[in-house]
Amino acid sequence: MTELPDLDSTGLAPFDAIVVGGHDVVDTPLAKRAEDLVAGGVVPAALLEPVRAELDRTEQRLRPGLGTRGSDGPAAGGQRADVERLVRDIEEFAAGVDRVVVVDVSSTEQPHDAGADGASYAALEAAWDAGRAPLAASSVYACAALLAGCGYVAFTPSPGIDVPALRELADRRGLPYAGRDGKTGETLVKSALAPMFATRALAVRSWTSINLLGGGDGATLADPAAASSKTQAKRSGLDAMIGHPVDGPMHIDYVDDLGDWKTAWDHVRFDGFLGTRMTLQFTWQGCDSTLAAPLVLDLARLVGRAQDVGESGVLDALGFFFKSPLDSDEHRLAQQWEALTAWSARCAERARS
Amino acid sequence: MTELPDLDSTGLAPFDAIVVGGHDVVDTPLAKRAEDLVAGGVVPAALLEPVRAELDRTEQRLRPGLGTRGSDGPAAGGQRADVERLVRDIEEFAAGVDRVVVVDVSSTEQPHDAGADGASYAALEAAWDAGRAPLAASSVYACAALLAGCGYVAFTPSPGIDVPALRELADRRGLPYAGRDGKTGETLVKSALAPMFATRALAVRSWTSINLLGGGDGATLADPAAASSKTQAKRSGLDAMIGHPVDGPMHIDYVDDLGDWKTAWDHVRFDGFLGTRMTLQFTWQGCDSTLAAPLVLDLARLVGRAQDVGESGVLDALGFFFKSPLDSDEHRLAQQWEALTAWSARCAERARS
Amino acid sequence: MTELPDLDSTGLAPFDAIVVGGHDVVDTPLAKRAEDLVAGGVVPAALLEPVRAELDRTEQRLRPGLGTRGSDGPAAGGQRADVERLVRDIEEFAAGVDRVVVVDVSSTEQPHDAGADGASYAALEAAWDAGRAPLAASSVYACAALLAGCGYVAFTPSPGIDVPALRELADRRGLPYAGRDGKTGETLVKSALAPMFATRALAVRSWTSINLLGGGDGATLADPAAASSKTQAKRSGLDAMIGHPVDGPMHIDYVDDLGDWKTAWDHVRFDGFLGTRMTLQFTWQGCDSTLAAPLVLDLARLVGRAQDVGESGVLDALGFFFKSPLDSDEHRLAQQWEALTAWSARCAERARS
Amino acid sequence: MTELPDLDSTGLAPFDAIVVGGHDVVDTPLAKRAEDLVAGGVVPAALLEPVRAELDRTEQRLRPGLGTRGSDGPAAGGQRADVERLVRDIEEFAAGVDRVVVVDVSSTEQPHDAGADGASYAALEAAWDAGRAPLAASSVYACAALLAGCGYVAFTPSPGIDVPALRELADRRGLPYAGRDGKTGETLVKSALAPMFATRALAVRSWTSINLLGGGDGATLADPAAASSKTQAKRSGLDAMIGHPVDGPMHIDYVDDLGDWKTAWDHVRFDGFLGTRMTLQFTWQGCDSTLAAPLVLDLARLVGRAQDVGESGVLDALGFFFKSPLDSDEHRLAQQWEALTAWSARCAERARS
Repeated sequence: MTELPDLDSTGLAPFDAIVVGGHDVVDTPLAKRAEDLVAGGVVPAALLEPVRAELDRTEQRLRPGLGTRGSDGPAAGGQRADVERLVRDIEEFAAGVDRVVVVDVSSTEQPHDAGADGASYAALEAAWDAGRAPLAASSVYACAALLAGCGYVAFTPSPGIDVPALRELADRRGLPYAGRDGKTGETLVKSALAPMFATRALAVRSWTSINLLGGGDGATLADPAAASSKTQAKRSGLDAMIGHPVDGPMHIDYVDDLGDWKTAWDHVRFDGFLGTRMTLQFTWQGCDSTLAAPLVLDLARLVGRAQDVGESGVLDALGFFFKSPLDSDEHRLAQQWEALTAWSARCAERARS
Repeated sequence: MTELPDLDSTGLAPFDAIVVGGHDVVDTPLAKRAEDLVAGGVVPAALLEPVRAELDRTEQRLRPGLGTRGSDGPAAGGQRADVERLVRDIEEFAAGVDRVVVVDVSSTEQPHDAGADGASYAALEAAWDAGRAPLAASSVYACAALLAGCGYVAFTPSPGIDVPALRELADRRGLPYAGRDGKTGETLVKSALAPMFATRALAVRSWTSINLLGGGDGATLADPAAASSKTQAKRSGLDAMIGHPVDGPMHIDYVDDLGDWKTAWDHVRFDGFLGTRMTLQFTWQGCDSTLAAPLVLDLARLVGRAQDVGESGVLDALGFFFKSPLDSDEHRLAQQWEALTAWSARCAERARS
Repeated sequence: MTELPDLDSTGLAPFDAIVVGGHDVVDTPLAKRAEDLVAGGVVPAALLEPVRAELDRTEQRLRPGLGTRGSDGPAAGGQRADVERLVRDIEEFAAGVDRVVVVDVSSTEQPHDAGADGASYAALEAAWDAGRAPLAASSVYACAALLAGCGYVAFTPSPGIDVPALRELADRRGLPYAGRDGKTGETLVKSALAPMFATRALAVRSWTSINLLGGGDGATLADPAAASSKTQAKRSGLDAMIGHPVDGPMHIDYVDDLGDWKTAWDHVRFDGFLGTRMTLQFTWQGCDSTLAAPLVLDLARLVGRAQDVGESGVLDALGFFFKSPLDSDEHRLAQQWEALTAWSARCAERARS
Repeated sequence: MTELPDLDSTGLAPFDAIVVGGHDVVDTPLAKRAEDLVAGGVVPAALLEPVRAELDRTEQRLRPGLGTRGSDGPAAGGQRADVERLVRDIEEFAAGVDRVVVVDVSSTEQPHDAGADGASYAALEAAWDAGRAPLAASSVYACAALLAGCGYVAFTPSPGIDVPALRELADRRGLPYAGRDGKTGETLVKSALAPMFATRALAVRSWTSINLLGGGDGATLADPAAASSKTQAKRSGLDAMIGHPVDGPMHIDYVDDLGDWKTAWDHVRFDGFLGTRMTLQFTWQGCDSTLAAPLVLDLARLVGRAQDVGESGVLDALGFFFKSPLDSDEHRLAQQWEALTAWSARCAERARS
């Protein structure tokens, strides 16, 4: 997407200069996971061999995530020690590249409130001193990213950077970040369609959303608590675009057989002139992982670029990518696109001046 | 729609000040047609009685259209005489109101080329002098509207005002006009969805459009020639939004049983990252007449307003309403909406200054 | 349906000889309810006047249901007194007609287990003697129907006649009955489609069923307990037709705006030869009340006929009408149809001999 | 399917005893075509290597079809010589196996009328003597199959064996045959659903059928003449099941991008009680080749079996497999299934006695 002519790609990292590393909580080799994607019909078989060597090199750059075998474990030094270990990993990785952007693409966590311990960075440090561990795992990673001086992207609805202590830390260090929760499928379609009803004064009476998905993400979301953070995000965006609360059920269901695929069915009941009852239904059949992957690359390029030109804090011009744009109530896709292209032009301008 | 807060409605005619008249080619009483709409489930039965008196008053303001019983017929004085008769009808109607806007909501005509006779208003007059009748019926009405000093709206894909001679006439008289072909249903949805694929760099491989409709409009479009002018309009808009010609069949089928209702099914095949094959389907079930009716009211208000503030020529800011916006290749709904709201603000500004 | 040529309608009650009465728990006049159906687009407005007088006559035949104003209330004489009051009402109605069939079309109750008190009619009487009230309301009505010598139809999934004590009573009195839970919409489609997958050896991997409905029935089913008795019935039929448990969510959601209408979306994932992944989706848009109404008439005719020719006990040849046919695991629509037509021929034969 | 418990598979050829050969008009190696199927997502990549050796052996058994390079060409000896060459090929193949069944799975031909020359086998021979070539290519193959003493299956709507001269020949030689036009996708679903409307007395007002397909079959059917033979077959079956002509368009559209996949959308408008307007839509996404392949194996087994037990002429019990069952107006899937299982039991019985 960052190569589309409407976006000014001046100064973005070339695709072939991007180096991938990361923390992972499973130790299935990447090549094996790529084979699974081929078997699941997600990527063509012919791609496997050409990327095998690069996958092996990437494998070498992976470090154990929190709570996994081979990690220090949380016991030894508490949450602060976890953060410090992750910082060391990131700095080691950073030694070989020009700039690092950390993207959270792990499984969705349950909602988590860090409470008073997360109210400021000082409070957080005090909690650590007292042996408490107030942060959710996603926030531990976000904290490490900031301490290592990296831009950050919240691609999941997990708490991550959205804790006052961490946002304060980002501001203090002058680091840019963006989030949250990648807008890849059914919500993407919604954000294109809902403004149509609003600007045409077609009264939406109910909007039903059914999401069927398998794979690891589906299994996580079969947990009602995790699903609720997802459906809440979907619902509030819709209400904002339509202009009032919209009735209708919203389900996320795990269907094992669907594998990496997702099928969504939406049913919209709206009234035309004089109350005439009309409907719009759509069925979306996509593959979340291949919808997300290019956005992750785009976001890494854009957040890296933002850091280059000296932007810091929330990058609200990147709301285009997210279900729940941080600090923004703009969910309409076209308006988000215009904000993004305008921002890319400003970045390019700033770099030239 | 013109009452939405994003549109500046300063100076628009109040709804209860709008007086409806017109030329009609059938003589079924309006009250009878309203009963048919109730029987077809288009408007609620409860509406009938409250509007019956107003329908009867409107009936009194109808004049016979071209080629109908009670009209002078084309024989007596040729096309010029037709125009003159229509002008007299409009002027008579105009005597009782502040301003008249003429909207073409008749059945779709076949494509028609006025040729050299339509190349300029002088050529048109010469053709009439020579006894030729180069204009399609829709253009005869458009010509009369202009000669009567009215703003004009082309709500169908018929030739209407889109003849060089008539556009020259409008410019010369300083009259505003807008068109063409109301964007009410499936094309409306397309113009909301296609930009999503474009800005997300999702490669659209085919886009199939099936339109089933009954009623008078359906019967007209069962004529392949009329349907072709409709599908051509639909196709070119899609290609413009996607950025290249898009494969896929496009059908308009008459299904008698559907009455005033229209069902459209669209099937979009697109590729995600690395060529992953995905699809989006939608089914639209709407009633074209009640989708069109409020747009006609909005357009009458807006074109009347344009004339008030001295605008003339094509009102390209009204592209939001049309499948084939005159002199414009902008089909994206959100961008059209922004152009419209900006224009409404400028009109209000101009009126105040 | 009972007038289709494949069914032998010999001896069925003529439609114009059917007299409708009943117990009701609301006191909204029938004519008012008919007006609501017209307003909701369920029945044509033109039907209202022709049936108004008959509705008023029917109104006169309604008696207060259990627990409603005007009824004796349960306090006075316990459940036995309730039964006796209902029997008197039915006998009074029966005085004016040749034969009475009682059909349960009330709202779905929660699952209810009468326990040991319902194990035999003797146990039930003993429980009443002891002042207990072991029957669900639907079963109180069923008991009254049997004591009044009527055939009985369980058109809902409520317990009704499906209590050992009552089935024993029906057998002892030689009364026919049929049930349960009318197969009117999405389950009907399933029972036509599922055998296709089975006989074509297409392996069904998941079958998702989404039911959106408004109206009174929808409000009742928004109660998870009532919904679970409904989804359980839907699920077991599917498993029986496919031949093994089938994965996939099944939802019944209340969407107020849908009124009397129901929209169901089903998504079937199946594998073809060599594991090729395929799907079938369907969307059903129907009106449960007008789907149920003619079945109720048909059932009244058929059960009345069964009683005429001396059939008693469960009429398993009537499984065609039900989601959960009593004492049968045959859910396939075509096989049910053949059983029904064969039975109708046998009834006719028996009457002739 | 022939292994389902409801079918008596006594005496059917074991799957691993089936030997595949044939005439082909293209010379792309089978292994290459299998790779294309893998690339198109039709069969899993993992299947390729295990079958490669068998594909190569099959390749050796292929002979050039009519009009292809390496064939004798039609010039030398006319249509009779073509037939004789094909007979020799079949007899050579037959030398290595117990029994041969010839299945026409070539591309759909245009409708073709052999006229008086095809009225009897004597007339056909006379036409050949006179140097005429009255048979369509598919009928030339059918003729050769019969002369070689083989059972025959018409899996396409091409004329094939459905010429009086050839049916006479089959009868004379006591050979069984079945056809025509494999019922694999949308028509299969129709034949499961249409009886539901008929037996429930739901009045079908229109039935729209849209078929999108790519691949070789799609390209052939983009030819309107070929498509018309296909849609005609689909339409007549529907009318027979519903009991009267059903309105509604029926399209077969070529969409190159769909490759071997087919997407069908059907829209059924029906009336419930008192004329309430309801709809059923379905979308079928299947792969015709993998839907057809197992049916071809089943048919080869069943027709071979029929020949073993001495059946000859049209096997109307095999209507289950076909869009246009020869000499039958029974299109209902469930009834066809019962006819098939009954026949399989009779065959088994006959073999035992």
